[in-house]
Amino acid sequence: MNKEKVRVIPLGGLGEIGKNITAIEYGDEIIVVDCGISFPDEEMYGVDLVIPDINYLIDKKENIKGLFLTHGHEDHIGATPYILQQLNMPVYGTKLTLGLVENKLREHNMLSDCVLVPVDAGEDVILDKIRVEFIRVTHSIADSCALAIHTPLGIILHTGDFKIDYTPIDGLVMDLNRIGELGEEGVLLLLADSTNVERSGHSISEKTIGETLLRIFSNAKGRVIVATFASNIHRMQQIVNASLKYNRKISFSGRSMENISKVAMDLGYLHIPEESILDIDDTSKYSDENITIITTGSQGEPMAGLSRIAYGSHRKITINSNDLFIISASPIPGNDKMISKVINQLFRKGVDVIYEDLEEVHVSGHAYQEELKLVHTLAKPKYFMPVHGEYRHLKHHSDLAIRLGMYQKDVFTLETGQVLEVSNEGVDTSKRVRTGGIYVDGIGVGDVGNIVLRDRRYLAKDGMVTIVIAIDRETYSIVAGPDIITRGFVYAREAEELINDIKEISREEVEACLNNNVVEWHILKTSVKKSVEQLLYDRTKRRPIIFPIIMDV
Amino acid sequence: MNKEKVRVIPLGGLGEIGKNITAIEYGDEIIVVDCGISFPDEEMYGVDLVIPDINYLIDKKENIKGLFLTHGHEDHIGATPYILQQLNMPVYGTKLTLGLVENKLREHNMLSDCVLVPVDAGEDVILDKIRVEFIRVTHSIADSCALAIHTPLGIILHTGDFKIDYTPIDGLVMDLNRIGELGEEGVLLLLADSTNVERSGHSISEKTIGETLLRIFSNAKGRVIVATFASNIHRMQQIVNASLKYNRKISFSGRSMENISKVAMDLGYLHIPEESILDIDDTSKYSDENITIITTGSQGEPMAGLSRIAYGSHRKITINSNDLFIISASPIPGNDKMISKVINQLFRKGVDVIYEDLEEVHVSGHAYQEELKLVHTLAKPKYFMPVHGEYRHLKHHSDLAIRLGMYQKDVFTLETGQVLEVSNEGVDTSKRVRTGGIYVDGIGVGDVGNIVLRDRRYLAKDGMVTIVIAIDRETYSIVAGPDIITRGFVYAREAEELINDIKEISREEVEACLNNNVVEWHILKTSVKKSVEQLLYDRTKRRPIIFPIIMDV
Repeated sequence: MNKEKVRVIPLGGLGEIGKNITAIEYGDEIIVVDCGISFPDEEMYGVDLVIPDINYLIDKKENIKGLFLTHGHEDHIGATPYILQQLNMPVYGTKLTLGLVENKLREHNMLSDCVLVPVDAGEDVILDKIRVEFIRVTHSIADSCALAIHTPLGIILHTGDFKIDYTPIDGLVMDLNRIGELGEEGVLLLLADSTNVERSGHSISEKTIGETLLRIFSNAKGRVIVATFASNIHRMQQIVNASLKYNRKISFSGRSMENISKVAMDLGYLHIPEESILDIDDTSKYSDENITIITTGSQGEPMAGLSRIAYGSHRKITINSNDLFIISASPIPGNDKMISKVINQLFRKGVDVIYEDLEEVHVSGHAYQEELKLVHTLAKPKYFMPVHGEYRHLKHHSDLAIRLGMYQKDVFTLETGQVLEVSNEGVDTSKRVRTGGIYVDGIGVGDVGNIVLRDRRYLAKDGMVTIVIAIDRETYSIVAGPDIITRGFVYAREAEELINDIKEISREEVEACLNNNVVEWHILKTSVKKSVEQLLYDRTKRRPIIFPIIMDV
Repeated sequence: MNKEKVRVIPLGGLGEIGKNITAIEYGDEIIVVDCGISFPDEEMYGVDLVIPDINYLIDKKENIKGLFLTHGHEDHIGATPYILQQLNMPVYGTKLTLGLVENKLREHNMLSDCVLVPVDAGEDVILDKIRVEFIRVTHSIADSCALAIHTPLGIILHTGDFKIDYTPIDGLVMDLNRIGELGEEGVLLLLADSTNVERSGHSISEKTIGETLLRIFSNAKGRVIVATFASNIHRMQQIVNASLKYNRKISFSGRSMENISKVAMDLGYLHIPEESILDIDDTSKYSDENITIITTGSQGEPMAGLSRIAYGSHRKITINSNDLFIISASPIPGNDKMISKVINQLFRKGVDVIYEDLEEVHVSGHAYQEELKLVHTLAKPKYFMPVHGEYRHLKHHSDLAIRLGMYQKDVFTLETGQVLEVSNEGVDTSKRVRTGGIYVDGIGVGDVGNIVLRDRRYLAKDGMVTIVIAIDRETYSIVAGPDIITRGFVYAREAEELINDIKEISREEVEACLNNNVVEWHILKTSVKKSVEQLLYDRTKRRPIIFPIIMDV
């Protein structure tokens, strides 16, 4: 009778989109699955990205055997440099995944300190009591894997991100047979991708995009400029194939596009005849109908390639009236307005733009309901825990498992920070660990917290008003000021009367204090702050942040 | 030979969503069609709403004959109080539209100063040389009309917002016959709604929602709580009908829901037996399965009903585990993340939630491609100008007209501020008028401009650092400070070293100036600002706003 326990600890990615990272423990052996970032939501002003809080792992440093990466998307590998800085460990993944990680580590000047261990789909990594098997899946990035984590208590099958594409671009189909075999052996716990659980039916094969692209390319008169996700190498390959068919050379634009296409070509995931690759500076040497440009900016990001081209601020690419633009991507929730702005701007410039609302130029990389049902049915898990998704997705994925015949008591809808502990006696979900998001802003990691963000929100909403007064405590008198500085509140030149009233009320408040021999800073400040706040709310119904500064000279 | 001209001047709503307002002029007679607001985009921090700039109209005050409203949606009537304050004129519209305007004018305490003239669909308003005919259309609010503006030069047909619903809830179908007659008479210019031009096929009838609702209600065990747009009275009626069928009483929650349902009932657009209306305070007197609550907040707005219920901050409604929530609305672009947050929170509370991704609980109120083709074909206009939409929509609507056989030279894709001038000699689109958005923030109208917004954006991104130094110009010395106040930049307690470095570098800069007998404010300020900016960028890669304050004591 095995008395050990398996603990699954989602440190990110459950009840949220992105920042996927899960610790899996057997006894005193710990592996970490994925290590992603998430993008700041609209309330996190100024934050560049969010990484997981891994204090839980740091406390158990000596037990950690390695980081196992399922695939090379940012929400699964993006935090690797930040996390390895705090906690170095060997990193296991397929060649392409590690190629992308290598790029990141190089940018952070830490490549030489890290150990990257390439693993092929179908191979095992044998640790002490745990064995980790990489199983090929299909997804919107090549070389994606599920992980079967073999423990003495049973097998934990973690799907990673996946869809079931029966006609993948590289011909490498998902290893459903192996999942079937594992199901026969007995899967203790299934952790499966929930992103598209609300979509009925079956996702569409990446290959259909190729057909659409061929049709679009066949009618293009000038350059074709395609914006897509830099990591979608299969999409890139299909754009390349359509270009070659119509005698176009291919040029890559945008830092991530150039980096990732290079890694993918070097490692043999993207195939382009050398003579068909064109430096962006050389495109003017060819006629327009022989050029395809693949660029970043498919989410409408203001600083990325597509936006810069649209607004005429790209250093190398100027719009021609016969250009055809294709946006081969879906808006990530929250980005639709940004993308729409860029589309509008392109149409204003008189060029044609093709996007998802008009043509099938994008498909999702995540399994729909029927695909999820297949994997559940093959794996026949004893327990199930949905991963990767907001709570609504996790909830619906649990419902799906129950509709497939699982008992409610064997299905666990948990969120980031909740521990799933499996033993021979059953499952315990009562424990929690400390988790959360660490904000990266500029080169600062973690120095912007909730208080700073709260202040940024207040400042954003109604701006600020600073009141400076110099007093002499000996004589109980104001010696300079009040001076008023305001930003983001009203346009001061047009609000002279209001500014004067702020001065007057501040002076009155301070004088009233001084006349009563009150010189304590906090009292002076508080009385100025309160009166000015009230004045401004009455007059404008706004609440700028008030900073009273009392100087003692 | 008529030498007069017809001028169509879009002051809002073309190349943008919302803020619909168009001036139509014949000779020295001007009418205004609609007068809407738009909602601030994500960059307009703190702005509550945006109204059109009507300076062009104010300059021609004496020629203006009236404001003609097509229907009662905010993007068509929302700015009425603000505009009438600047420029009083009679307001024409159908009963429901005017009922909603009345509410607004009452809130602004200006009802007694305004003239509201009810017009029924099918009726004409005869001005001097212009005659305005109201023509019934179907849309997501009752009592919507198109306008046929009869001028001596010809008929201008403005569709307003519309869809073609052959089975509307109130039985009042769109007057396609009249549009056909006008087409026979000869339409000089068609202005038509472009919102859904990118959608192929035909929109779905509002009536289908009723069937879905009946099925959902038939299975509900506890209260049914439906969030929808307050203005969608047909939707309200269908929710009421399903409730009555299953012996539920109806309670309205949320200010706009209570207001609009009252107006709609008073005017006979919404029919509920009196004994079936329940005050929200009385819901506890009935069992859950006999209660329906219709609430605001279908866009996930944090302060509206649905969010408050989900997060437990509603004063009157507490979640029961057997509640069924229905979100009978689509996310307006940009709102999807907010709605998703509320859905997640409701699921966390253990209740069921039905929304558009799962069931057909919402249909659009705007015409799809086949409906637009019908109206174009009936109206057979000489000229066409698409209205209501971003540039991409206008562009596609122009393309649609050309595919239907119009000449490119007779189709005009213009944006807000561009004038379409039609005479017997042809069309001129070369003129422009001043237009734009005026920001409403709190009770301020127009006192927040682009400079204030730019400052809010900077403050939001990286916060601010204020440096206060008091100097004595006589002795060329610092007498107090530097003191540092920072908000939204770093958490000051954890950045003591950085704060000290700011102090030191500021002191050095000021002392260097003073030692050279330089006391000019702007030089002192600029040198402090520059050095601190550089220091902070080098150390954090952030650019907070720096406010150096030099006090002279």
